[in-house]
Amino acid sequence: MTAVADVAYQAAKKLAREWQVEHAFEDYRDLLQFKEVDAVLVTVPNFLHAQVAIDAMEADKHVLCEKPMAMNAAEAERMVTAQKETGKTLMLALNNRFRRDVQYLKAYSEAGELGEIYYAKCGWMRRAGIPGWGGWFTTRSLSGGGPLIDIGVHMLDLALYLMGNPKPVSVVGSTYTKFGNKDQASSRVLGIANPQGIFDVEDLATAFIRLENGATLTLDVSWAANIEKEKVFFNFIGTKGGAALENERGISIYTEKFTILEDIHPQVNFDDVEARTEMWRHFLHCVRTGEQPLTTPEQGMFINKILDAIYESSQTGREVLITTPE
Amino acid sequence: MTAVADVAYQAAKKLAREWQVEHAFEDYRDLLQFKEVDAVLVTVPNFLHAQVAIDAMEADKHVLCEKPMAMNAAEAERMVTAQKETGKTLMLALNNRFRRDVQYLKAYSEAGELGEIYYAKCGWMRRAGIPGWGGWFTTRSLSGGGPLIDIGVHMLDLALYLMGNPKPVSVVGSTYTKFGNKDQASSRVLGIANPQGIFDVEDLATAFIRLENGATLTLDVSWAANIEKEKVFFNFIGTKGGAALENERGISIYTEKFTILEDIHPQVNFDDVEARTEMWRHFLHCVRTGEQPLTTPEQGMFINKILDAIYESSQTGREVLITTPE
Amino acid sequence: MTAVADVAYQAAKKLAREWQVEHAFEDYRDLLQFKEVDAVLVTVPNFLHAQVAIDAMEADKHVLCEKPMAMNAAEAERMVTAQKETGKTLMLALNNRFRRDVQYLKAYSEAGELGEIYYAKCGWMRRAGIPGWGGWFTTRSLSGGGPLIDIGVHMLDLALYLMGNPKPVSVVGSTYTKFGNKDQASSRVLGIANPQGIFDVEDLATAFIRLENGATLTLDVSWAANIEKEKVFFNFIGTKGGAALENERGISIYTEKFTILEDIHPQVNFDDVEARTEMWRHFLHCVRTGEQPLTTPEQGMFINKILDAIYESSQTGREVLITTPE
Amino acid sequence: MTAVADVAYQAAKKLAREWQVEHAFEDYRDLLQFKEVDAVLVTVPNFLHAQVAIDAMEADKHVLCEKPMAMNAAEAERMVTAQKETGKTLMLALNNRFRRDVQYLKAYSEAGELGEIYYAKCGWMRRAGIPGWGGWFTTRSLSGGGPLIDIGVHMLDLALYLMGNPKPVSVVGSTYTKFGNKDQASSRVLGIANPQGIFDVEDLATAFIRLENGATLTLDVSWAANIEKEKVFFNFIGTKGGAALENERGISIYTEKFTILEDIHPQVNFDDVEARTEMWRHFLHCVRTGEQPLTTPEQGMFINKILDAIYESSQTGREVLITTPE
Amino acid sequence: MTAVADVAYQAAKKLAREWQVEHAFEDYRDLLQFKEVDAVLVTVPNFLHAQVAIDAMEADKHVLCEKPMAMNAAEAERMVTAQKETGKTLMLALNNRFRRDVQYLKAYSEAGELGEIYYAKCGWMRRAGIPGWGGWFTTRSLSGGGPLIDIGVHMLDLALYLMGNPKPVSVVGSTYTKFGNKDQASSRVLGIANPQGIFDVEDLATAFIRLENGATLTLDVSWAANIEKEKVFFNFIGTKGGAALENERGISIYTEKFTILEDIHPQVNFDDVEARTEMWRHFLHCVRTGEQPLTTPEQGMFINKILDAIYESSQTGREVLITTPE
Amino acid sequence: MTAVADVAYQAAKKLAREWQVEHAFEDYRDLLQFKEVDAVLVTVPNFLHAQVAIDAMEADKHVLCEKPMAMNAAEAERMVTAQKETGKTLMLALNNRFRRDVQYLKAYSEAGELGEIYYAKCGWMRRAGIPGWGGWFTTRSLSGGGPLIDIGVHMLDLALYLMGNPKPVSVVGSTYTKFGNKDQASSRVLGIANPQGIFDVEDLATAFIRLENGATLTLDVSWAANIEKEKVFFNFIGTKGGAALENERGISIYTEKFTILEDIHPQVNFDDVEARTEMWRHFLHCVRTGEQPLTTPEQGMFINKILDAIYESSQTGREVLITTPE
Repeated sequence: MTAVADVAYQAAKKLAREWQVEHAFEDYRDLLQFKEVDAVLVTVPNFLHAQVAIDAMEADKHVLCEKPMAMNAAEAERMVTAQKETGKTLMLALNNRFRRDVQYLKAYSEAGELGEIYYAKCGWMRRAGIPGWGGWFTTRSLSGGGPLIDIGVHMLDLALYLMGNPKPVSVVGSTYTKFGNKDQASSRVLGIANPQGIFDVEDLATAFIRLENGATLTLDVSWAANIEKEKVFFNFIGTKGGAALENERGISIYTEKFTILEDIHPQVNFDDVEARTEMWRHFLHCVRTGEQPLTTPEQGMFINKILDAIYESSQTGREVLITTPE
Repeated sequence: MTAVADVAYQAAKKLAREWQVEHAFEDYRDLLQFKEVDAVLVTVPNFLHAQVAIDAMEADKHVLCEKPMAMNAAEAERMVTAQKETGKTLMLALNNRFRRDVQYLKAYSEAGELGEIYYAKCGWMRRAGIPGWGGWFTTRSLSGGGPLIDIGVHMLDLALYLMGNPKPVSVVGSTYTKFGNKDQASSRVLGIANPQGIFDVEDLATAFIRLENGATLTLDVSWAANIEKEKVFFNFIGTKGGAALENERGISIYTEKFTILEDIHPQVNFDDVEARTEMWRHFLHCVRTGEQPLTTPEQGMFINKILDAIYESSQTGREVLITTPE
Repeated sequence: MTAVADVAYQAAKKLAREWQVEHAFEDYRDLLQFKEVDAVLVTVPNFLHAQVAIDAMEADKHVLCEKPMAMNAAEAERMVTAQKETGKTLMLALNNRFRRDVQYLKAYSEAGELGEIYYAKCGWMRRAGIPGWGGWFTTRSLSGGGPLIDIGVHMLDLALYLMGNPKPVSVVGSTYTKFGNKDQASSRVLGIANPQGIFDVEDLATAFIRLENGATLTLDVSWAANIEKEKVFFNFIGTKGGAALENERGISIYTEKFTILEDIHPQVNFDDVEARTEMWRHFLHCVRTGEQPLTTPEQGMFINKILDAIYESSQTGREVLITTPE
Repeated sequence: MTAVADVAYQAAKKLAREWQVEHAFEDYRDLLQFKEVDAVLVTVPNFLHAQVAIDAMEADKHVLCEKPMAMNAAEAERMVTAQKETGKTLMLALNNRFRRDVQYLKAYSEAGELGEIYYAKCGWMRRAGIPGWGGWFTTRSLSGGGPLIDIGVHMLDLALYLMGNPKPVSVVGSTYTKFGNKDQASSRVLGIANPQGIFDVEDLATAFIRLENGATLTLDVSWAANIEKEKVFFNFIGTKGGAALENERGISIYTEKFTILEDIHPQVNFDDVEARTEMWRHFLHCVRTGEQPLTTPEQGMFINKILDAIYESSQTGREVLITTPE
Repeated sequence: MTAVADVAYQAAKKLAREWQVEHAFEDYRDLLQFKEVDAVLVTVPNFLHAQVAIDAMEADKHVLCEKPMAMNAAEAERMVTAQKETGKTLMLALNNRFRRDVQYLKAYSEAGELGEIYYAKCGWMRRAGIPGWGGWFTTRSLSGGGPLIDIGVHMLDLALYLMGNPKPVSVVGSTYTKFGNKDQASSRVLGIANPQGIFDVEDLATAFIRLENGATLTLDVSWAANIEKEKVFFNFIGTKGGAALENERGISIYTEKFTILEDIHPQVNFDDVEARTEMWRHFLHCVRTGEQPLTTPEQGMFINKILDAIYESSQTGREVLITTPE
Repeated sequence: MTAVADVAYQAAKKLAREWQVEHAFEDYRDLLQFKEVDAVLVTVPNFLHAQVAIDAMEADKHVLCEKPMAMNAAEAERMVTAQKETGKTLMLALNNRFRRDVQYLKAYSEAGELGEIYYAKCGWMRRAGIPGWGGWFTTRSLSGGGPLIDIGVHMLDLALYLMGNPKPVSVVGSTYTKFGNKDQASSRVLGIANPQGIFDVEDLATAFIRLENGATLTLDVSWAANIEKEKVFFNFIGTKGGAALENERGISIYTEKFTILEDIHPQVNFDDVEARTEMWRHFLHCVRTGEQPLTTPEQGMFINKILDAIYESSQTGREVLITTPE
């Protein structure tokens, strides 16, 4: 690594010292001017993703951008356009795709062992997990939303990836804010509660998504809810087999053989550090070879479209159609 | 009991002998002429519910009608009208409402212990449970539909009842037929498989229902699906507490007290025979006193409206709005 | 059924009355003279199997003979010869072959999913299960041996069947008599202990069997032993997968896919009555069609050869070779 | 410690520095010349055990030699002879004997609580545990064999020790090589797979051993096999009680008292470091007092004889007799 | 059986018919006049035990008397005196003593395996188990008390028996009535609640009993209490071993061997019918041989003394000393 | 912290260095002369608590004194008197009171949710846990007693606190010494056994305590006993609910609602360091504000009275009454 930039310049200098990085900048635009830099990793808060990534590509840098891609689909589309115009590599840092269990399930599904997946459910429901440490997570103008944009992005991305990235056609959704800024919420907060802070995002959301291939995908997310315990789950129901990927239980496959129902338990689990390392390796590979990254900007844009649609549907109380650009 | 009627007259006579019933008829209209009969129990296949119930009320009989109320909302509305015009008692045989655990949860919820229920999920998903015995279950013109109308009716009714019977506003849904008449389905069938029979109903359905109070209710049902095992579940998420009612686990309450998360397990389970006995007792009580039954025709009609909307949404791929008559 | 015979003539008559059988005989040879009888079921004690079965075939009857086929291989060979000479159907009543789980595992193995099975272990070890009811089980001249011939026959038959009936090449074995007729044994006996009775058979046996295809099969049986609890088990270790069939746990498959270890649990169990019914049905089918039964006399003979070899090896302390007739 | 030797001289010097050992040699013969050294610990690869140990004893040093004692019985006999001629202490580093649970079980057995042990089974079966780190484990000319000589030595030694070291009389065995150098084996390897390396040893072995006292001992070992999971087990079946020593479950005793079956669970487990410390202490004690070590060269030699016999039996397909020297 | 008597004469006649007993009386005194009767079984309510048993012995009959022996120690002493004067067999129907697990534990303890038992705890605590069926259980003048005299008698008898029947020296105790006749109690009642009935006995009692050998015994009983679930337990803590006898878990022994802590689980459970049959057999044996019964009148009397002392201590708030008659 | 004192002056100096404390003294009286010191923490062995605390208060210092308050009630009373005369803060270091689970249960009980607690049981029974490290724990003249004064103090304090600190009225108790200094005890000792050391205290104690409000409290403690495993438990049985606080299981509440029995599991556990930190904070708060500490000297004195009474009752075999000073 050659350079870091942070509006908090002291923090940038401290990081540079610790990681033995040569250059530290206050303004990321100065960094982008820097010739030695080939590629940029964008880890700024959500509301800055689009601007920084576009500036970087226009300054002839490759970009690995943290999730969510952008605050909304409009921003995401501008990023896609910038990528097309500049020809630089734009990859989304969706590290879960590189997990061993996810790769195993992808291979399983692509080998046709599940048949056609016609119904899928995914979700990340927390009983008590409002991110209370920094403050910007719970402020819509900085984050773009609550658990939907924080953890829902991972769920949607993996679900669509494992289903073969079908396009969304229409969405209905509901979002609710029931715990934010309430006294009783103190036991619901991860880290230090900050009751004076702004909390204008949802704490629970649910959506029903119709896909172009006729399949249905549902999504459930919450930071706080009166449920048994935290659950992270994917259920894919296919004509030949079903697959579940759950925290605490890993992957299970439900199918039949010789007309006998059969449960399969692959002994695969994952290591988050290993997954991130694989993600870096893949980004470097794409930068070097010019190959299309596994996590394309188009896929990220469709996730932003779905999120936009869920928020809109919740507000209007009506279904929202999603159009695919030619 | 005084009289029975069955188009299969021999069966009617046999039943009459076994249960020591005095009169047996081939045509139910003859039975309805019979003066000694005050009240009629309608247990004919779904496609006959409306006609028989209306005829009975018009013949001055009280009616306890098996679920689903009717094949569709239009029929159900005719039944509501007939009830209003005749003034007879028309009660739906939704026996699950009379279960001790359901009554306990109703009391719990009505005491305000769950706060406002803003999100609820219910479902009855079977891995291998196509009703293969009689044949009419899988023929749409006789049954009106598949698991949605067979077991989904119970789920919707209990969920709405425990939420305080809010009116539905809009519905999206998907239905799928993936196992019917396939060879591989043989291991999915309860009782004797009948592969020559008609199978023109769904085997899996899912729906997203928006309610007038802003709450969301989702429904999942299947007769056959590649999932772990049969699950019957209700999850009510409220601002003060959440409640789960599940096969295998019974009722669990998730709440907090003095800012500590708290799990509550009431030691209540149910006996199906006891629930049915309570239902009969309640029907007789309503007939005698003229009281409104716990399971009103209006509630049954709204369930038929939701079912109609799910089928329509699945066919059109669009949201369906539900209107409430003045 | 047309006729029964029992040296205890009163018992024969009683049975005939209960099962509404027309004819009862004291001497089975009288029954064999009887023209109306086409097929005979031989359920006499072990030491009479060969004689009765041969007499029956020579009297032009088909025979379904209880396990073990005979007291030893010499007798079994005489039965094979008689079958060949008379051309009658001679089937062994090895009911376990007709179990649904066994048939599933056979299909699994024949589909090549386990690869080559090179090592297999089977056993039926009881902690406390000496058959103490009748008396003849524990007397060698009547039974031919102890648990080896009582329950070991089932284990060997299923193991060889599921391995594809490879021929045995050599055997070493040990048999022990440690509990018989001892006072302490009282708690080891099923039914009523009979300490005055003869106990001259083994109560534990173990053997190592080398097969013609290079595979190894081991066998463990006991009626009484200081072990944790009764265990009935088959373990087949193949190049592509392994299968375990155990009491309490049913079938498990251990294999790998995409280089990930995978455990498979088929949801199959069995019903002993169903298995026996299948066995009768198969016998009648073979009698009618002249087809070779699933459980051939040759297979039964090889099991008797293995049992003979185990007893001989235990006595001499040396390996015993098994020859296959041309 | 005074001196270390390693053909990789740099490694020897590094070790000497780390452990603050004064002298480091390239050639162990130089170390053996060293007067200050009284006793030598032999931890070289298997194929060098015999030569180094004999040289050491002839150089008037006491020897603690790693397991297996030697590549084969011939080498082991030469070591026994050298020990007798030199009178030095020659002890085998079988650390498991010094475990608290093993010592407890030895005391239990010697107190007569199990009666006569007539049947014993031991094994160490791994589903995925090929030692892939160094390379010499899988090369016969360096290691002498696969899991039989790697982990089977521990099993045989403990089993015979706990049975009172009866002499073996005859052996049959089978060894198989099914996973070595295969692609699919990658998931079976501990550490880094080295598919180019030599793999000419077995990966599974089984044996049936007849002992002089009439008892039978069986052995199962594997580095890779399609089984449920790794199992390390000893089962001793005695006339008064049975004992099991298993990974995951520790020691269990099965017996009876006042004619009631009784399970006993001693709360003893072991600490590998403690066991090794006890082993060093015992070696020093023997060196100082001249006492016979707990793990004698004769016992090690008999284990080598059994291993030789298993390999020979597997190759010839015949039983191998073992003779005891006068 | 020859004759029955019941103040409800119709019931007596009905019973006589059903059990084919020749004679039925209204007044038990008429039965006692009857020459053919040798022995009498006293199963009348508690308040009649003493009178009937004494009358019977004075009428020259042997007596098997239901537990508790009497309403109080004074009555019990009169029974002891009557037995001594008449020389008839007087046995208490404490059926639990004849259970196989109790006999096993008695043998275990008498063999000295527990050493000296210095502290014992016993109890039968029910969360919801008020005997509501008949009514006389909850009326002090008929029953003598609540759970103390109903189920506490069994606990005290077994505990003292297994400790070797040491004499009690002093007692403190507390009894409480918290659920009787309260509305909330409806869920606490076995059978049909009878809220109009008299409830003037305790529903929970606890006591601390000092024994002549220095040991301490504590007792806990309840019919209703806010505890987890019903527990029936005996814990004997001895110098060499401890024993627990619990519902759901049976017998466990906690001891040590070779300085290792050891848990022992005997596989013994009991069959209530078997225990009662053993009790009858023992009574007949005592009647025939004149032997002292296992459950002597003196032991029953001491239990009544302890119960008296607990009630008195609870009332006075002071310790009560128990004297042993010379 | 300003100063430390220790009769082992070197230890005091070492501690001062490590904790960066300015002053170190050999004689605590020198420390008490020191003006800068406002408050003193007394952590000397039990037999010195009273003297040091009184001296400190008389030297105008506030005192936080380790448990048990004193060797006996007489000493404790002198401490109470000194506190009253000097007006200094005297707080007992009963850290368990400050645990989150204890505070939760206290709030629960004070909110009236358990109703009236009429029966409570508490105990800390160890199977093998004699504190063998220092030596003074097992010597009565230094410690005042065994497990009763070591761990029983915590049990009594929490039990009485959670019951609302009712005054004790009378006590019976038994103490036993069965394992001290015995060879077999080696496996019962925590840390290093010291068989030459003095062991003149009890190793098991049990007591029955009658409280002024009519409730009963029992206590069980042991350092060594033949039981299943270590158990730390509190059971509070109240008229509206019962509460259990157990090691391994945490808090459970047993109650009823709408006549249905209900089990409640609050998700609260504790962190010992957090509890101690809360205790320091509370002490500083009391010192600064002059507020009465949560753990008052009077409460500590009553615990000493109960302990005195248990020892006396065990010695005399008689109940001991406890008087409350005016």
